[in-house]
Amino acid sequence: MSKTVLNLVMTFDGFVAGEHDEMDWLHKIHKRPTGSAKWDLSTFTSQVGAIIVGRRSYELGIAQGWFKNEAYGPSPIFVLCESVPANLSHDADFRFVSTGIQDAHRQASETAGDKWIYLFGGPNVFQQFLNEDLVDEMRITIAPILIGKGIRLFHNLTKRHIELEKINVTDHPNGMIETNYRIMK
Amino acid sequence: MSKTVLNLVMTFDGFVAGEHDEMDWLHKIHKRPTGSAKWDLSTFTSQVGAIIVGRRSYELGIAQGWFKNEAYGPSPIFVLCESVPANLSHDADFRFVSTGIQDAHRQASETAGDKWIYLFGGPNVFQQFLNEDLVDEMRITIAPILIGKGIRLFHNLTKRHIELEKINVTDHPNGMIETNYRIMK
Repeated sequence: MSKTVLNLVMTFDGFVAGEHDEMDWLHKIHKRPTGSAKWDLSTFTSQVGAIIVGRRSYELGIAQGWFKNEAYGPSPIFVLCESVPANLSHDADFRFVSTGIQDAHRQASETAGDKWIYLFGGPNVFQQFLNEDLVDEMRITIAPILIGKGIRLFHNLTKRHIELEKINVTDHPNGMIETNYRIMK
Repeated sequence: MSKTVLNLVMTFDGFVAGEHDEMDWLHKIHKRPTGSAKWDLSTFTSQVGAIIVGRRSYELGIAQGWFKNEAYGPSPIFVLCESVPANLSHDADFRFVSTGIQDAHRQASETAGDKWIYLFGGPNVFQQFLNEDLVDEMRITIAPILIGKGIRLFHNLTKRHIELEKINVTDHPNGMIETNYRIMK
């Protein structure tokens, strides 16, 4: 049985990117003399069998060449969309799903088999999945910086309380905190 | 020289209380069989020489009897206000300051001497102090729960980036993460 996992870095004040998708805050932390917390994506993605992204993350990822990164591995990437985009990229094995998140999740589960589903983003996608009880695990690294404005990870949850059970928490000399929680259902 | 310290618990999604000031989420975590993370306020307040609160926290604290709690110790409590309230409480040694946060900070520093200034809250007060570079240290305990709505700790910062330097991070079996960061200036 596949599990669905969110994996990302957010600022201490809850943002995953600046107002204009900036990641300069993350580069600041990585440049600290205390060293970069090893955010080893390939160890994670080696366990992944399918990836789910929203339409905006697809467009942004194409523009910025994210999906050419080998760390994402050979997994098919299911793109949530209202209609198949004109801009068809061959950076990865993209599969467009316009039939809603439940169906995207079902297709991704079938493809992933025993491997994990990597919920890539963005925040709107996470929140829809959290609201529908489709997330099993969160791997969120908290960066030691406040940026004040930007794209919030959590801003539109409709479920009242979602309790988290600790799997693992690791803190790094540069101030990064890697957290891994199970969503309690 | 006194240092100014913020000390509180927030949810993983960045709230310090529910929409109607509820703290039920915190009680849920404390009731877990994995035990309550010892949020030992009196160890902290034994190092405190002055407390600063906003007007709303003052009213709420009076209504809920917070300041009768011996854990807050004998420190004078400076209340930021536009005018001295009609509702004068004798729950603690309250001192009303209507001349702005810089002046409140100066008065609290003089009173605290070598001891710390405990920035009690609420979030509007924190953010004004952060924006004015008046905070030295944050002690924030992150509770393993998402509540979706409520009173955000960080929502109105005007400074672009505030970097944090790790002093100490401790994670507890019940999923709480106690963080202690120095504000880099």
